[in-house]
Amino acid sequence: MSADLNGTQKAVRSHPPAFDIRVDRVPIPKVEHPDDAIVKIRLAGLCGSDLHVFRGHEDVHEVLTCGHEFLGEVIALGESFKPGSDRRPPLYSSLKVGDTVIAPFTVSCGECHFCRIGFTCRCERNMLFGTPATPGGQAQYVRVPFAGGTLYNLSSIAKAASTMRGNINSIADTSLLLLCDNLPTGVFAAFQALSHPKFLPMSTGLPYPLSSLGASAESEALTLLPEDRALTIAVVGLGPVGMCASIALLDMLGARQLKYKVVAIEPVEARRKRMEAIFSIISKTEKGFGEYVVADIEIGKALVKEWTGGIGCNAVIEVVGNPSALTLAYDVVRPFGGIHSIGVHQEPMMPFQGRQLYDKNVSFDFGRCPVRAMLPMALDLLLRRQDIFGTVGGDGSLIEKVVSIDEAAKAYEEFNTGKCNKTIFDPWR
Amino acid sequence: MSADLNGTQKAVRSHPPAFDIRVDRVPIPKVEHPDDAIVKIRLAGLCGSDLHVFRGHEDVHEVLTCGHEFLGEVIALGESFKPGSDRRPPLYSSLKVGDTVIAPFTVSCGECHFCRIGFTCRCERNMLFGTPATPGGQAQYVRVPFAGGTLYNLSSIAKAASTMRGNINSIADTSLLLLCDNLPTGVFAAFQALSHPKFLPMSTGLPYPLSSLGASAESEALTLLPEDRALTIAVVGLGPVGMCASIALLDMLGARQLKYKVVAIEPVEARRKRMEAIFSIISKTEKGFGEYVVADIEIGKALVKEWTGGIGCNAVIEVVGNPSALTLAYDVVRPFGGIHSIGVHQEPMMPFQGRQLYDKNVSFDFGRCPVRAMLPMALDLLLRRQDIFGTVGGDGSLIEKVVSIDEAAKAYEEFNTGKCNKTIFDPWR
Repeated sequence: MSADLNGTQKAVRSHPPAFDIRVDRVPIPKVEHPDDAIVKIRLAGLCGSDLHVFRGHEDVHEVLTCGHEFLGEVIALGESFKPGSDRRPPLYSSLKVGDTVIAPFTVSCGECHFCRIGFTCRCERNMLFGTPATPGGQAQYVRVPFAGGTLYNLSSIAKAASTMRGNINSIADTSLLLLCDNLPTGVFAAFQALSHPKFLPMSTGLPYPLSSLGASAESEALTLLPEDRALTIAVVGLGPVGMCASIALLDMLGARQLKYKVVAIEPVEARRKRMEAIFSIISKTEKGFGEYVVADIEIGKALVKEWTGGIGCNAVIEVVGNPSALTLAYDVVRPFGGIHSIGVHQEPMMPFQGRQLYDKNVSFDFGRCPVRAMLPMALDLLLRRQDIFGTVGGDGSLIEKVVSIDEAAKAYEEFNTGKCNKTIFDPWR
Repeated sequence: MSADLNGTQKAVRSHPPAFDIRVDRVPIPKVEHPDDAIVKIRLAGLCGSDLHVFRGHEDVHEVLTCGHEFLGEVIALGESFKPGSDRRPPLYSSLKVGDTVIAPFTVSCGECHFCRIGFTCRCERNMLFGTPATPGGQAQYVRVPFAGGTLYNLSSIAKAASTMRGNINSIADTSLLLLCDNLPTGVFAAFQALSHPKFLPMSTGLPYPLSSLGASAESEALTLLPEDRALTIAVVGLGPVGMCASIALLDMLGARQLKYKVVAIEPVEARRKRMEAIFSIISKTEKGFGEYVVADIEIGKALVKEWTGGIGCNAVIEVVGNPSALTLAYDVVRPFGGIHSIGVHQEPMMPFQGRQLYDKNVSFDFGRCPVRAMLPMALDLLLRRQDIFGTVGGDGSLIEKVVSIDEAAKAYEEFNTGKCNKTIFDPWR
């Protein structure tokens, strides 16, 4: 209990029904439960899904503290973290006051079935930051429930033996903040596409179903030709998550030495320009395996047709979350292709007849990223691609700017109307 | 050209618009293309999907010869099969007059990208038997296009070295006929469920995403408990394919030594009774790993709730093909569960809001079985489970009866109204 936690703090709050963001003074949160941590925020991100509350789409009737991306320092811990507290996972005993931490956008206890198997975003005690029950991180302090399961302890990872992990100390906070949501979500989307059984014949060189059984299986099967393994993949939507998904995808394809053509489809020109600048950075190091093009919807569709002789993409990563994005994904996917939808969908019904899905043997993955489980993979990519993730404000960087928390109302307004891209709040500036 | 192929033959034909099956005399088919084979039919199956044409759901305005399940003997071959024909896959040079063959329900060339990677049902030259363009096998003779790719040559497999495969000679034709559609489709459904990345934490014991990367990956992850790996799986629909899917599922779970509870949900009592009889045969050899229950819809839902404390099944195999079956599958699946839909869906739209799918992190596999690619796995199961697949007419057998082709009209009528189960036609009786 090192800080004076009896005062008030600044917090970005959404006032219902919609479009009303204010920076209010509210009490500094206190430990309410033995598993709680209080984190002093160093930086907090503004995310596309914050706009659901801003636009009044979430049926919220209370004032709430926004934000589910934050990086900070642990300043207080509940009783569960005291040395000698037994029967808790190691995550509880290793977290200390003074540690630098980030949180995924959902609370996860680290102790239930879903946490153990890695599906942390569906933890049985799962709560989303930035809701009435769980005040968010766009503030100076935040209370983190089930902190031993939820928080990713960057200090303890930095101390670990691995040389690469040791580099965490030299990484800017703005860069580390991408680990809360956008980067792991992009990694998850790309990983789902490349891990799907319908994708494996291309990546393993074995025909289905041997591709899912491994090379030791008995084979009466045909042999793949090199051209069978040439991949075509589409990314639909180039907001921050779509950009991260594209970068992760190229990284994974390069690591597997697969030949690919990737088209990133996005109607907004400013986003296309930003992605093109990022692609030109990637092309300095990822040579010889693939081709990537940024296109609007019509050009993107035409390109897929031309590249594949009309049969379509092996996989589509959908990062928008509405029926027209799903329809576009269906239009450009080939038979036995996968549609990996990381977009946050709302009330509209699925825009497909059952017969359409049967006729193309389509597979779908839906749903939110289990960030806590994806963080090691995301951190690995973040550390290796500091040429992209380490910069702020350039053409080739994901993050557009860091502003004072006092400018939150303006930042929401600009982000909502597409006038600016990824924005980060400094609550002490 | 050993037989007199200039005469006429009996064929089961559907006369539009619907519900009009006749046994007509039509010309015996001839080789029309160098890749053709003419097969003299020994047995032909009546399949649930034959009922789509029977009921007039397929928008067919011509008389057509029905049926896509047949076993027979090659009696004529086109020029492509002559010794010395080069640049064709081995499948073409090894097929001989006199060979016993079966065909999957779709033609596959064996030479295109989709055939090479094992997605044979979406072959670029794919045609469905029993359509106006490709007369079916409920006849005395059938023409098989792209026969070197399409036909599965049981004679050459029987000659191969493996002892198990050598047993093919002792297997009844009625049993082998199950390889055309029902059995490989059931195997495909079960295999999709068990191969999905969201299922792998339970089968590998590694948390996601390590479960998809293999044990060699770096691990900061939690450890699974034995209870995390206890599986609950539902099969929705117990027609012949649903029964085969259930048998294949239990076989695969047993082979992997996974602990399971399987509920097979079916509203029709006669089908439940048949499946219970089959389960009691399986339980004689599959001991100690699992529990399986056959239930109607309400009891099935209650059972899943009870077994899983309300969280739902790890996977659902949907073998019906309509929106209410999909809705039931969604209701009983847990977050991060897979819905593997092998049912033939029609015009109705998908009965889901995008948000429902996001909120449960659901994955779907849709579409038809690539039978040609699944045949080795299906044959292996067929040979090992002759106690089930080798019988006709008992409580615990899939096949209810073998009738003369002359009784086709009555058989369609009875099958359509649920008065009989799997029926096979003998065109020479």
